[in-house]
Amino acid sequence: MTPLPDADAVLDAIATTRAVRRYRDEPVPTEDLNRILFAASRAPSGSNRQAFRFMVLRDGERARRAKALIGGAAREIWSAKRSDDGYDRGSGVDPSSRKARMAATMEHFVDRYEDIPVVILVGAERHRPGPEETIGASIYPACQNLLLAARALGYGGVMMTWHRAVEAELRELLDIPDDVFLAATIMLGVPEGGHGPVRRMPVEAFVFEDRWGDHPDWAVDPPGARHTTWRR
Amino acid sequence: MTPLPDADAVLDAIATTRAVRRYRDEPVPTEDLNRILFAASRAPSGSNRQAFRFMVLRDGERARRAKALIGGAAREIWSAKRSDDGYDRGSGVDPSSRKARMAATMEHFVDRYEDIPVVILVGAERHRPGPEETIGASIYPACQNLLLAARALGYGGVMMTWHRAVEAELRELLDIPDDVFLAATIMLGVPEGGHGPVRRMPVEAFVFEDRWGDHPDWAVDPPGARHTTWRR
Repeated sequence: MTPLPDADAVLDAIATTRAVRRYRDEPVPTEDLNRILFAASRAPSGSNRQAFRFMVLRDGERARRAKALIGGAAREIWSAKRSDDGYDRGSGVDPSSRKARMAATMEHFVDRYEDIPVVILVGAERHRPGPEETIGASIYPACQNLLLAARALGYGGVMMTWHRAVEAELRELLDIPDDVFLAATIMLGVPEGGHGPVRRMPVEAFVFEDRWGDHPDWAVDPPGARHTTWRR
Repeated sequence: MTPLPDADAVLDAIATTRAVRRYRDEPVPTEDLNRILFAASRAPSGSNRQAFRFMVLRDGERARRAKALIGGAAREIWSAKRSDDGYDRGSGVDPSSRKARMAATMEHFVDRYEDIPVVILVGAERHRPGPEETIGASIYPACQNLLLAARALGYGGVMMTWHRAVEAELRELLDIPDDVFLAATIMLGVPEGGHGPVRRMPVEAFVFEDRWGDHPDWAVDPPGARHTTWRR
């Protein structure tokens, strides 16, 4: 058992890769984009079939139209979610609450969607007809590699699936065959703010042993881990 | 734009995380397992709902029965795949070919399935009824974090979905509710062999810009990248 000499650096990168939704008005150089996409493709996939495909949308004419389509959908979906999920109720009335800050970030994100430096539409060529829920095992690991590599190189991003609301229009505009599963969009840019440890549920909420819901004693959060609310 | 000081270490870890299917007869200490699972949970998920759950199967009585169930399925599936995918035909008749070596590794893997030090059954509590192909966006990023963290700490593993053949039996044995999506198994152990750069298709096969199939000039493989066979 030989850990990498930089094991802690890898674990730290993983633990500080946050969803980043505010970007500076700076492009992502293609040299870095290339490194990020190469890292993405190092992911595993079923039978190593590598059906994942990354369509980069930056400033081209089709790219701008695609971003406008997805941006329009994002504004509608967010507006409904803001109301349905009660972002402006309860603690959300206090503008310094986490809920209100999250709402402000989302509002900023969808309002400026068209200005996001890079949108990557992630697709996968189907091996068999869908729907097939495990198809994601061949795509989303590559998406996570992409986000981690971006974070390592100083960028930030977020993965979303709201493109589904305008999927037919995107297929038409970008010549995407029907047998391609459109799995996600990943937005990338130079972060406006900083990175930092992500916040999740305590380990006891999601690690079981031998029986669903049975939490083993050895699974504990490291000292100082910050949590999201969670009820057993 | 501030890259991590150890950006290269992170990118190298990503580029050398291979599927590992041969393990030494050594346990994975729970301290390391804990770090690996903590890293897994740092992944993103839809609305940060964190529905991913990791059920660890090691040496307990239920664990042994679960491994036997999955191992039995794996032997059947591999046997059919070996024949259907022609592992023993063409270049496969040469035992030094990549095809034959892959077949030998798979044979070894399924034959000793019950001895694999750690099997992690990955599930997710459904937010809405399935099937929903994008549910994987909330689970498989965590699986990739898990594999990368394992690699950083000197372990190796592989993700598979062959548990589906015995899903009903696993639910019964491990008390897994019906509304849990069983997404994958991840096998982990101390690798018998070494790590090293993974091999994938050339970048032109999977990076597009503005239009499906249009490969941008800026997307190129780094010098020395090794490729799997690929036809345009």
